Amino acid sequence: MEDDKKRYTLAILVNNRSGVLMRVVGLFSRRGYNIDALSVGETENQKISRITIVVTADRQIVDQIKRQVEKLVDVIRVFEMTEHGSLQRELVLVKIKAGDKTRTEIVEIGEIFKSKIIDVTPTTITMMLTGSLEKLDSFMALIRPYGIVEMSRTGITALERGSRSLIEIGHEEDYGEIEN
Amino acid sequence: MEDDKKRYTLAILVNNRSGVLMRVVGLFSRRGYNIDALSVGETENQKISRITIVVTADRQIVDQIKRQVEKLVDVIRVFEMTEHGSLQRELVLVKIKAGDKTRTEIVEIGEIFKSKIIDVTPTTITMMLTGSLEKLDSFMALIRPYGIVEMSRTGITALERGSRSLIEIGHEEDYGEIEN
Repeated sequence: MEDDKKRYTLAILVNNRSGVLMRVVGLFSRRGYNIDALSVGETENQKISRITIVVTADRQIVDQIKRQVEKLVDVIRVFEMTEHGSLQRELVLVKIKAGDKTRTEIVEIGEIFKSKIIDVTPTTITMMLTGSLEKLDSFMALIRPYGIVEMSRTGITALERGSRSLIEIGHEEDYGEIEN
Repeated sequence: MEDDKKRYTLAILVNNRSGVLMRVVGLFSRRGYNIDALSVGETENQKISRITIVVTADRQIVDQIKRQVEKLVDVIRVFEMTEHGSLQRELVLVKIKAGDKTRTEIVEIGEIFKSKIIDVTPTTITMMLTGSLEKLDSFMALIRPYGIVEMSRTGITALERGSRSLIEIGHEEDYGEIEN
């Protein structure tokens, strides 16, 4: 069923305790789910961290992963971030080969994508770019022919659109709508 | 020796195989090293992923971690990214409470930090901001009094300044300078 596989983004709220990241990553590893990208960072609450994982799988497997992850110690809740319901952004740093003949072209491509030049040497330009996975992939496709010395991507992070937090949305799913 | 503890950023190049992320994270977890932030993403080479970890520790422990991580299966090399020798960037998405009275103020703070507004509702503004850890922390300190509904950070990603890649720098350390 290779065709049914798609990229899914999961936001996992966890207690900020040593070991919880390993439990989450270990579950993916043991079951053979391959993680495309992962980011972990602080949240508005010091006691809670947020793990964002992008995984390529089919629908059934994703539902299974969600159930399994939610059972882990120190996992508060797992949310699926849909493409239209959420704001997904990633950051990439890329060092590109750039000589006197190609520098202007590369800078122009950078401007189209609103990238920022953060370092220049006689032979390279280093740019920072943010956006959706698709935007970053398009940029990389245009820039690749010039020669990529090095690239580093953060993995996606995501917030739900609208005015509420995931915690509030979670409460509503559990107890019904609590406010209008 | 609480006073000697500082934040260190490690860039770990690994073979893009299932299990390697767990090995790395597991080592930190077993030894009780707390990970402040972590990001994993693709690199310019499909077969290689790059894990960036921020850890608070003293000098001795960091050296120990580097040696231990380098011994793990599928870890190619560990590099310490220094503050001055590297370009470190992080991305944050933050949903802030914003009513008719506060919206303009919040937008103005956002402009100072060159943040981007990516979603607005009658009661909230969602912004995206990129920068160093310090810049993001300053922004958050100014914005916090308005009320943060939700925040998600990617964790830091970093590239070495200058024209070379980490792989090239690693070769030079091993075999001496190979080119001028």
